[in-house]
Amino acid sequence: MRKINLIHLGIGNVGKALVRMILENRKELKEHFGADLNYCGLFNSKSGIFDRRGFSIKQLKQFPADSRVEAKLAVDEVPLPFILIDTTASDKTFPLLEKALQKGGYVVLSNKRPLAGSNEQFKKLHSFGNRLFYETTVGAGLPVIRTLKTLLATGDDVSEIYGCFSGTLGFICSSIEDGVSFSESVRQARKMGYTEFDPREDLSGADVGRKTLILARMMGMDVEPDDIKIQKLYPTSYDGYTVEQFMQNIDKLDKEYQDKIRKAKKRENTLRFIAKISQNICKVRLTKVAQNSNFGSLKGPDNMIIFKTKRYSDRPMVIKGPGAGSEVTAAGVLGDILTIVRVV
Amino acid sequence: MRKINLIHLGIGNVGKALVRMILENRKELKEHFGADLNYCGLFNSKSGIFDRRGFSIKQLKQFPADSRVEAKLAVDEVPLPFILIDTTASDKTFPLLEKALQKGGYVVLSNKRPLAGSNEQFKKLHSFGNRLFYETTVGAGLPVIRTLKTLLATGDDVSEIYGCFSGTLGFICSSIEDGVSFSESVRQARKMGYTEFDPREDLSGADVGRKTLILARMMGMDVEPDDIKIQKLYPTSYDGYTVEQFMQNIDKLDKEYQDKIRKAKKRENTLRFIAKISQNICKVRLTKVAQNSNFGSLKGPDNMIIFKTKRYSDRPMVIKGPGAGSEVTAAGVLGDILTIVRVV
Repeated sequence: MRKINLIHLGIGNVGKALVRMILENRKELKEHFGADLNYCGLFNSKSGIFDRRGFSIKQLKQFPADSRVEAKLAVDEVPLPFILIDTTASDKTFPLLEKALQKGGYVVLSNKRPLAGSNEQFKKLHSFGNRLFYETTVGAGLPVIRTLKTLLATGDDVSEIYGCFSGTLGFICSSIEDGVSFSESVRQARKMGYTEFDPREDLSGADVGRKTLILARMMGMDVEPDDIKIQKLYPTSYDGYTVEQFMQNIDKLDKEYQDKIRKAKKRENTLRFIAKISQNICKVRLTKVAQNSNFGSLKGPDNMIIFKTKRYSDRPMVIKGPGAGSEVTAAGVLGDILTIVRVV
Repeated sequence: MRKINLIHLGIGNVGKALVRMILENRKELKEHFGADLNYCGLFNSKSGIFDRRGFSIKQLKQFPADSRVEAKLAVDEVPLPFILIDTTASDKTFPLLEKALQKGGYVVLSNKRPLAGSNEQFKKLHSFGNRLFYETTVGAGLPVIRTLKTLLATGDDVSEIYGCFSGTLGFICSSIEDGVSFSESVRQARKMGYTEFDPREDLSGADVGRKTLILARMMGMDVEPDDIKIQKLYPTSYDGYTVEQFMQNIDKLDKEYQDKIRKAKKRENTLRFIAKISQNICKVRLTKVAQNSNFGSLKGPDNMIIFKTKRYSDRPMVIKGPGAGSEVTAAGVLGDILTIVRVV
């Protein structure tokens, strides 16, 4: 039985689901993979527990009502082999991840930010061999990153990637297509918990931009965040508003979107918020697509990614499904952990 | 640099493409993965070359104009770590595969038959730990098997799988939908090399049945080939015909298919050859589906697989793309080999 130590940052919805899945499947993981996943550290932004010998299930379940330890202590003290898991949404974890890799540990991220900051950081994290995993940063549990990695590793030439990477914006596009006004679509999405509290987090396309950046860099492009051309779904002047002011003013955008969708429909088109990555360009924008195309057939919050490669040229490879949610994301993170378990 | 020995059975279209990919990428494989893939054996049904020290590229390129050795000799003599690759379409390779696994080797299959024979054989090959890989047996280079494995390993409950697993039958269904007669569709498919020389190989659904069997067994079902209910696309009485007689008589089936597609279209449906696997049933048949459904939107020879699971319930996971072809299949086999390279 190989003991594999875990340090886990970020005990929000995804983090909690992951802890539960690991504890629930612990016995099966031992039997099937001969691996004992041993939690040595569990941290959220405010507190944490850490013991290099590991915690019992009971102790883990008591967290976060427990003692406080600085996360940075953990990485230095935890014995190899270990996995540092980052399910935060923080842009402050990079130094910890780097330290973990330097020390010979593995790193699994659902947190996009360490890979979507400077290109230097992206390259740094990739400079320690094959010990970095981040399947869920694009499409959550959908097999996107792994598929792209396999295409590249087997010598395919990935010329273009197209994607609808936001369930929230997918829901809003579908809703507008069904005749609902833009403002009402945003209100509904917000009410259903699809958007952040401040819907501009979604409508700005920033999250889609981060996913686009990760894929572009995987394809070998040296791109910085500013190189991704992102079309916001609201005017820049709205950036100064409070959330309340923003919500009060989105009605003013309804006519514009009503016109756009009407024009699109006249020619059997519809609108989707699409990321396009090719050798020379990275852009994210509201795009007209044929209703009977792959993207046109997308409904509600589903994500879709289309790979056009040398081998998949006339007929691309298409992957579709829910691209967010704590259960599918946690499962994807666990999938990465199991990949590591097989190697260690 | 770790030397990983290869024995490769089946040097047809897929096999040749694989040899070429491995030789072309050899340098990169060394640099990226620190692995030297060393060909010790190369066999087709009639002849083979074998040397436990490995062959030079020049020697490999000369095959099959070279000496003849029995394949079974290879497995006993080749030093660990080694990978036995089976890109044949033979049902005779099982004993060799078993021997390779017993000896501690890895096995990679694009050949479906060893997994689609008796359930006992399937279980036997899976009894040696995680050293058996067969990504390309369903959907060729599409990430089907790996995705199903990850869903199952992370504790998801895969309740239903639906699939269009035949490019040939997909082409024929699309063609009928476009108003072409059944017999003409088959003739076209045959002319374009989509069908085997005897199109009954495809129209019998036998190949789709094998893929269905593999997925069902992965889902934990104890099924034998006879348990898969397959609807042939021609009457059983046609089984006695020669290929020529068969081709002369398929016109008689045109009216039946014309009626079927007309009825389907009246209600905005269409016809697809669909495999359905759920806990209680495995069947493969021509099925009416809504034109605007996932399967309905499928065009030409593309494959599609739909996973319905506990986590992907309301909105399933869908993977689409070309599911056959020597390039994408060879690349998928190479993907399996690279997975092994990371572990060894």
